[in-house]
Amino acid sequence: MRLPDFKVEQWMNDYENEAVYNLTDTCVSPLTFQQLVSFDDGQSFMNLKLDYGEITGAAVLKKQILSLYETGTEENITVMQGCLQANESVIYTLLSPGDTVIAYEPGYQQFTDLPLSIGCKVITLKLYEENGWQPDIAELEEAMKQDVKMIIVNQPSNPTGVLFSEEYMEKLLQLADEKNAYILSDEVYRGLYDEPSVSDLYRRGISTSSLSKVYSLAGLRLGWIKGPKEVIDLINVRRDYSIISTGPLADHLAALALSHKEAILKRSREIVSENQKIVEEFVNSHPIFHIVMPQAGTVGFLGYEAEINDTMLAQQILKEEGVFFVPGSCFGCEKHLRIGFTCDPETMKTGLAKLLEYLEKK
Amino acid sequence: MRLPDFKVEQWMNDYENEAVYNLTDTCVSPLTFQQLVSFDDGQSFMNLKLDYGEITGAAVLKKQILSLYETGTEENITVMQGCLQANESVIYTLLSPGDTVIAYEPGYQQFTDLPLSIGCKVITLKLYEENGWQPDIAELEEAMKQDVKMIIVNQPSNPTGVLFSEEYMEKLLQLADEKNAYILSDEVYRGLYDEPSVSDLYRRGISTSSLSKVYSLAGLRLGWIKGPKEVIDLINVRRDYSIISTGPLADHLAALALSHKEAILKRSREIVSENQKIVEEFVNSHPIFHIVMPQAGTVGFLGYEAEINDTMLAQQILKEEGVFFVPGSCFGCEKHLRIGFTCDPETMKTGLAKLLEYLEKK
Repeated sequence: MRLPDFKVEQWMNDYENEAVYNLTDTCVSPLTFQQLVSFDDGQSFMNLKLDYGEITGAAVLKKQILSLYETGTEENITVMQGCLQANESVIYTLLSPGDTVIAYEPGYQQFTDLPLSIGCKVITLKLYEENGWQPDIAELEEAMKQDVKMIIVNQPSNPTGVLFSEEYMEKLLQLADEKNAYILSDEVYRGLYDEPSVSDLYRRGISTSSLSKVYSLAGLRLGWIKGPKEVIDLINVRRDYSIISTGPLADHLAALALSHKEAILKRSREIVSENQKIVEEFVNSHPIFHIVMPQAGTVGFLGYEAEINDTMLAQQILKEEGVFFVPGSCFGCEKHLRIGFTCDPETMKTGLAKLLEYLEKK
Repeated sequence: MRLPDFKVEQWMNDYENEAVYNLTDTCVSPLTFQQLVSFDDGQSFMNLKLDYGEITGAAVLKKQILSLYETGTEENITVMQGCLQANESVIYTLLSPGDTVIAYEPGYQQFTDLPLSIGCKVITLKLYEENGWQPDIAELEEAMKQDVKMIIVNQPSNPTGVLFSEEYMEKLLQLADEKNAYILSDEVYRGLYDEPSVSDLYRRGISTSSLSKVYSLAGLRLGWIKGPKEVIDLINVRRDYSIISTGPLADHLAALALSHKEAILKRSREIVSENQKIVEEFVNSHPIFHIVMPQAGTVGFLGYEAEINDTMLAQQILKEEGVFFVPGSCFGCEKHLRIGFTCDPETMKTGLAKLLEYLEKK
């Protein structure tokens, strides 16, 4: 079951280490182990027995995860090694060759190419920048005339950072319900503010997330799935062929982080909003740039007007100035750069100044 | 892509917590976090930044992994979250619907049911207890007349603990080479002694392993794949859709463990050989039991002669006496119990005495 290169991940793998000014990272500036365990007064992690632990995730962790949602019990949660794996597991468990899936573009490549690799049909709906990166309701209605098994959404979205409008969301939930379709909602960028979760809104809604982005803890490789019990039960069968468990160390540290989530999220909000202010000011002052400033999440999609294509621009500005972006083409949308509001604000200022200077020279 | 219940894993999930005398665990008595980091004088793990880390595994860890093999460079290694995931990744990357696979029975269900779930044809060859759990060369020759894409072996084997004979192995390598077939070799039970690795013996050999069994560190969820560079490159493409990375914490702790592997393995060898002696003495004294005592690994397959079937026996002796076994039926072989030489020797003695007493009452 061959897959094409995962463009954004390949780009990160190939180039990230060369970055001096990383303006594209999706994870809020990561915590150290020391910073994390400073929450654990008794250093109770020292006594952990490194066996498989609780197979579908520690009960204490599931309880903390549930605090992020309005509804559900432990039976609605299974713990995974990151949100990417959570998505993979939902897709492999619920989809079969021939099923029809809806995804969005610009978007994260996993949502189209993983279903395609197992022989699904994928309908890609467009997000329109001129409409604040909103999709079109009429296009959704048209697509939903088909026998759609799953709609895959990503809110806040990577790379645009945008949430669907209330009007669009309402229509989506109504049409999905009529068709008995699943909605897989990647909510890995959710949590900084008060964004709703699809798993709280819809009987066949499956929400995935992790500690990697707004919790600054990608290094724990800890994610989860929240969904209907019968879906979680099916996923847990597949899980036995794939991961066994996430282990007591990651579970313990994840529960520790979530039990101190307000402190971690406060730090993340400050970093993100300071960077957003810098970007906003920059874009307002320099009309060759434009951005739909997102209300949530950690990323945005910076457009520019210049002759140079985005892949070339991203490669050259990295090589010549050490400024690192993922080009929009990795998400199926040219003349854009994915920007992460996650770095040290001084880095953001310097990197943007270098970007401007570079484009003005052209 | 539905999968049937994974019998042995389901059994462990359903019953393990009820065990008073766990005589079936495959992992040598697990280390604590404290025991592991006692190797790290400077507590350097405290300063780790919890970002994604090195995407295909930390270079320092790959170097330690290579010390377990005769051949290869860093390009032949990719790091995974356990051996199960390593196997899954090899199977999903290299196999497509319609491919023919050879596996063995009694054996680990992942090797048959994961290929079946993606539409492969699986030929199952038998391991013959009367022949020391060796498979039959003539049966292999017959099977290899087909267009075989991959042979999946598990050495030392779960549940028998046995390695293929040199004669069988030689024939297997020769026939695989003639057909240009891959050999996926799950070597998660390798390492206590000086067992060879298929990845060192065969140009299309792919070996998988982890720290879970002989290294007593299942809780790190850390495994790896060693194989030809072109296979590792393909797996790394799929990896981007599935795990991103194993993270700097698990990588660091795994490298720490492997840099002190002699101390860990010495402890494991002592635990396993003491338990083996107890089991051997027990079987020799009580002719209703028989076992092919393995030369390697951490498990063996205890046969018994009595009217009660193995699933019933395992359920009842757990309920009535707290003694925990996985029944042979979970591996496709009745009237056997999978035994792990991994527990406290006193537990082994007490558990076996209770098993004998229970069967004698019947």
